[in-house]
Amino acid sequence: MRLNEIRTPALVVDLDAMENNLGRMASFFRDKPCKLRPHFKNHKVPLLAWKQIEAGAIGLCCATVREVEILVHHGVRGILLANEVTSEEKIHWLADLSRHADIIAAVDDERVVSDMACIARKKRARLSVVVDINVGLNRCGVPPGEPACRLAKSAIEKGLRFRGVMGYEGHLQALPPGEERDHLCLIVDKSLVDSRTLIEAEGIPVEIVSTAGTGTYAEAGVYPGVTEIQAGSYLLMDTIYVNRGSTFQRSLTMLVTVICRPEPGRAVVDCGMKELSAERGLSTVKGLDGVELKALHAEHGLLELRNSAAGVKVGQKIELWVHYSDATVNLHRRMYGVRDGEVEEVLTIEH
Amino acid sequence: MRLNEIRTPALVVDLDAMENNLGRMASFFRDKPCKLRPHFKNHKVPLLAWKQIEAGAIGLCCATVREVEILVHHGVRGILLANEVTSEEKIHWLADLSRHADIIAAVDDERVVSDMACIARKKRARLSVVVDINVGLNRCGVPPGEPACRLAKSAIEKGLRFRGVMGYEGHLQALPPGEERDHLCLIVDKSLVDSRTLIEAEGIPVEIVSTAGTGTYAEAGVYPGVTEIQAGSYLLMDTIYVNRGSTFQRSLTMLVTVICRPEPGRAVVDCGMKELSAERGLSTVKGLDGVELKALHAEHGLLELRNSAAGVKVGQKIELWVHYSDATVNLHRRMYGVRDGEVEEVLTIEH
Repeated sequence: MRLNEIRTPALVVDLDAMENNLGRMASFFRDKPCKLRPHFKNHKVPLLAWKQIEAGAIGLCCATVREVEILVHHGVRGILLANEVTSEEKIHWLADLSRHADIIAAVDDERVVSDMACIARKKRARLSVVVDINVGLNRCGVPPGEPACRLAKSAIEKGLRFRGVMGYEGHLQALPPGEERDHLCLIVDKSLVDSRTLIEAEGIPVEIVSTAGTGTYAEAGVYPGVTEIQAGSYLLMDTIYVNRGSTFQRSLTMLVTVICRPEPGRAVVDCGMKELSAERGLSTVKGLDGVELKALHAEHGLLELRNSAAGVKVGQKIELWVHYSDATVNLHRRMYGVRDGEVEEVLTIEH
Repeated sequence: MRLNEIRTPALVVDLDAMENNLGRMASFFRDKPCKLRPHFKNHKVPLLAWKQIEAGAIGLCCATVREVEILVHHGVRGILLANEVTSEEKIHWLADLSRHADIIAAVDDERVVSDMACIARKKRARLSVVVDINVGLNRCGVPPGEPACRLAKSAIEKGLRFRGVMGYEGHLQALPPGEERDHLCLIVDKSLVDSRTLIEAEGIPVEIVSTAGTGTYAEAGVYPGVTEIQAGSYLLMDTIYVNRGSTFQRSLTMLVTVICRPEPGRAVVDCGMKELSAERGLSTVKGLDGVELKALHAEHGLLELRNSAAGVKVGQKIELWVHYSDATVNLHRRMYGVRDGEVEEVLTIEH
């Protein structure tokens, strides 16, 4: 099947660009003590998870227990749930999954640590934890230093397998590359490694210090004492990260069809916010000068055409760059892997 | 199962409020020549479509061929595809579906009319069309009057079954109720009915004049010559329409769990934009004073707590009002129908 024959709206991945990103990130980590454990939440495609592992990743990060389950069912054995789970029902679910894989869950709460230890004991499950440290994103996590150390000791006392610490600096991903970002990254990495040192001073081994996304992996990946990086968006890339100065290639587009061409300066495509997220900004048009996406309704995209684009016709297919890959992939069940204009594989996105 | 036992994040519908909306809208149309053909795109739940039909709706409107297919498979027999379809492949799909139901498709393009007629003839399918008129939304549609009349004649000449006209005034849905909106509604309804008159003057019968959403049904529903209303959001309702002055009751919430309570003034819940759309604004919190949703990340919601809400705890479940139901329902596969705190039915959302 040719690209033009795909039923629209459809999520399309340029396999050359994606494989280039895969290889570039793998070669960065090849000779380093720090390793890559990329985030599954970004693409949710088990086949891509396996491509990342084959390229050297030590496992995957997840944002939900359901994502952990998908990966376990697809044979992935090293999973960091880089998010808090608090309900007993979900802890039970996680404990059951931990029979099949090395599952490490983030914790930042004493009561949850107690519940987790209690459920793991009852089920004879081997649950591992990392202490989630707030490194300035101000979302989840305990403060660095003493509070992190206290929770680590508590987890061990209660019988959980303590593996280390994590802290995601999402607030730094938005900064353009440069001295300021490098400086702030250093502060984050230092606070994580200092927490590590404090915990080790108590005689507790720390195997994992996990941090960083696609915007900051290069700094954190060479910081002594950081052991793994969570970056995931690098694989498919999106316009947000490109605008922030990342040099990975965008591989992800939405294929859409022009359904209406009412006036010289306007066209409407068959893709709205139910297929393409605009939560962080509007998509741009790939390879067509003078065509701009002006708005997304629920099922429609409104294009503005300048003179040079007067040839745009009803029925014509157009590609829009995916602006925010995380939220857009979440709207789909498959992505079409395309090379040289030909569909090479259909990748299943699992939910 | 109690409301509190549902795994979060989960979409919850208050059955009393929803049934109240269903009954109120049905009673508005009971004694009127104009009828309701509500939009399926809003809830995508076949069971709710059937509740609407049982309450008097003459069929359903759809935004995509896939939605038409879902309804056909669930036995619905009167379907208006209130959107443009242009690719031959989708016209084939629609023609196949038209063997099982009375399917009426919106058209606004000569070439598409030709393709549709050609495919319908080849397949011996009975495709009906309404001419889509641009009533000021400036999305799809031909201008009212002569252009609409020309396309109607063309559809008939080519062998399609012409049924009437439609025009959706989405730009008026956002206006608060009042004289200005009423006045603009009258202009829209008049332009549709004038187009009807013009077409009838050519000796062409016009069975359908379709328009209006939840913000404007009351005006359009009594305008002489308008035959059916497309309003769909009234059933589940959302904060957008409530903010615009609608008196239907909001029935739709997101049940979420507090996963982190790092500081006196902050809490984090297990629901971000992958589960709850913020495309048109942020949700508010149901029934909890002093708690405000400040931001949605991909998988997290960030709450600000004032003093009065100091009791919010890790593990606690909270309901958020769905701000934009169309885009939020699109993120889910089921909604939990709840009455008096008890789950009464699980409604399947079809995609």
